[in-house]
Amino acid sequence: MRISVIGGSTISPDVEETAVDVGRLVAQRGHTLVCGGLGGVMLAACRGAKDAGGQTVGILPGDDHGRANEYVDVAVATGLGHARNALVAMNGDAVVAIDGGNGTLSEIGFSFVFDRPIAGLGTHDVDGIVACETPEDAVRSVEERVDR
Amino acid sequence: MRISVIGGSTISPDVEETAVDVGRLVAQRGHTLVCGGLGGVMLAACRGAKDAGGQTVGILPGDDHGRANEYVDVAVATGLGHARNALVAMNGDAVVAIDGGNGTLSEIGFSFVFDRPIAGLGTHDVDGIVACETPEDAVRSVEERVDR
Amino acid sequence: MRISVIGGSTISPDVEETAVDVGRLVAQRGHTLVCGGLGGVMLAACRGAKDAGGQTVGILPGDDHGRANEYVDVAVATGLGHARNALVAMNGDAVVAIDGGNGTLSEIGFSFVFDRPIAGLGTHDVDGIVACETPEDAVRSVEERVDR
Amino acid sequence: MRISVIGGSTISPDVEETAVDVGRLVAQRGHTLVCGGLGGVMLAACRGAKDAGGQTVGILPGDDHGRANEYVDVAVATGLGHARNALVAMNGDAVVAIDGGNGTLSEIGFSFVFDRPIAGLGTHDVDGIVACETPEDAVRSVEERVDR
Repeated sequence: MRISVIGGSTISPDVEETAVDVGRLVAQRGHTLVCGGLGGVMLAACRGAKDAGGQTVGILPGDDHGRANEYVDVAVATGLGHARNALVAMNGDAVVAIDGGNGTLSEIGFSFVFDRPIAGLGTHDVDGIVACETPEDAVRSVEERVDR
Repeated sequence: MRISVIGGSTISPDVEETAVDVGRLVAQRGHTLVCGGLGGVMLAACRGAKDAGGQTVGILPGDDHGRANEYVDVAVATGLGHARNALVAMNGDAVVAIDGGNGTLSEIGFSFVFDRPIAGLGTHDVDGIVACETPEDAVRSVEERVDR
Repeated sequence: MRISVIGGSTISPDVEETAVDVGRLVAQRGHTLVCGGLGGVMLAACRGAKDAGGQTVGILPGDDHGRANEYVDVAVATGLGHARNALVAMNGDAVVAIDGGNGTLSEIGFSFVFDRPIAGLGTHDVDGIVACETPEDAVRSVEERVDR
Repeated sequence: MRISVIGGSTISPDVEETAVDVGRLVAQRGHTLVCGGLGGVMLAACRGAKDAGGQTVGILPGDDHGRANEYVDVAVATGLGHARNALVAMNGDAVVAIDGGNGTLSEIGFSFVFDRPIAGLGTHDVDGIVACETPEDAVRSVEERVDR
């Protein structure tokens, strides 16, 4: 299946390590990683996924598909600006939220709108997110809640 | 200025009354009301604004500009589906959130993304929203925080 | 009804005069003018409409609703970039195309997609556009082809 | 590089054969095929590309990424409706237009907006499109005009 990994573009070393681990697990367990294609959590998760031989998709806010981070296999430019956040949530069968700020909050809202299960790692405290302690817990949590 | 009023499309009588009051106050204080153009909080707020002689703008998810509620003066169809939530936040100088579910949560996220002050009336408990007790408090709260 | 006026943002004095005349006629005949909200044909048509006491709506590519030309009554920011061209066509019941370049061509395509009658004044030579000689002909041509 | 193949969703057997050939050539010459992900020209071109072992990306108008045709490797849902046409043009470094109707015309407009070279095979007669006789000519025509 596809798992969207969402989170901020500016992150601490601890959050970076978490995002790399999530990306690695997503790939090891046979899933495609979807993200916003830029830096921070997005880049770290893509790096983890590529280290494990996985596939990564980046959905960019700008109109130049060459602007994705170097660990994105398939970059799709949208030119939609922040409205592309809807597409990031929409294109995962499940969502893992790591840390993150305002953009991430909009993506969490869209994850619920599109009825995607969400696991959280140190992210917003919102009803409906399953707060997890480890990357392993987060990935397993969403796996269990996706039908297809 | 413009105030975006956000909230769910299915509401209780109490929430409806609150939304009507917010719409009326927005108009009485000389502001234009922006909303998603459909039912529930959107319709009630528009009705309040029109009762007070104000102007209302509805930004619709569908592609038929004739589908706005009857209290919308200027309807703009987008055809964007849920991604239009970004436009609802973007088009207010400030935001009042009333009750609301998942779509409202995405609009709250976008309100922060676009740096709009938000007042809340019985809505999501998110850091950065000024929780208010009455429609008067909510409208004054955002007025105080907008420069232009 | 609503008439979308489309055309380039850089125009000659002749085209400007045509656009002003179209805007004036749209308003005089009781229609609301919809456009992309920026300069060139958009500005000239809005100016004509306002000179005649009409109403104008501008649907902007950027995310700042304050960036519309000064003759726009209701500006709606989209943040969609060029994809907002779909919304300009969608929000008119009919379309008048004046001069124009590549963006205008995309709007002509969308006008057909959304089944809007189009009249052209010195614009692209595309099957389905009724080429007109004067602003009067153009406005009457689309009036005759709209049901509502 | 990436080549966007655009054209109608309802096609004749002749057009289908042309689209299959274009897709096959795109793949054989080492390019990724981008399209709107649905039927007609989109499906036929993807089928040709997959027969030749290439990669295909489908950018869908709806919000379900599972709705792409069976020859799409990476489907990206947008939920934007017809406005997704902007993204189809934006995501190719060049564009081949085959047959096609109104949606295709909007994509041709966007191809010019984003400064993409276009080759045409029996498509709209618009200045700036290089009309070609064969799939080989079309693919070579755009290859010659792309820098990267």
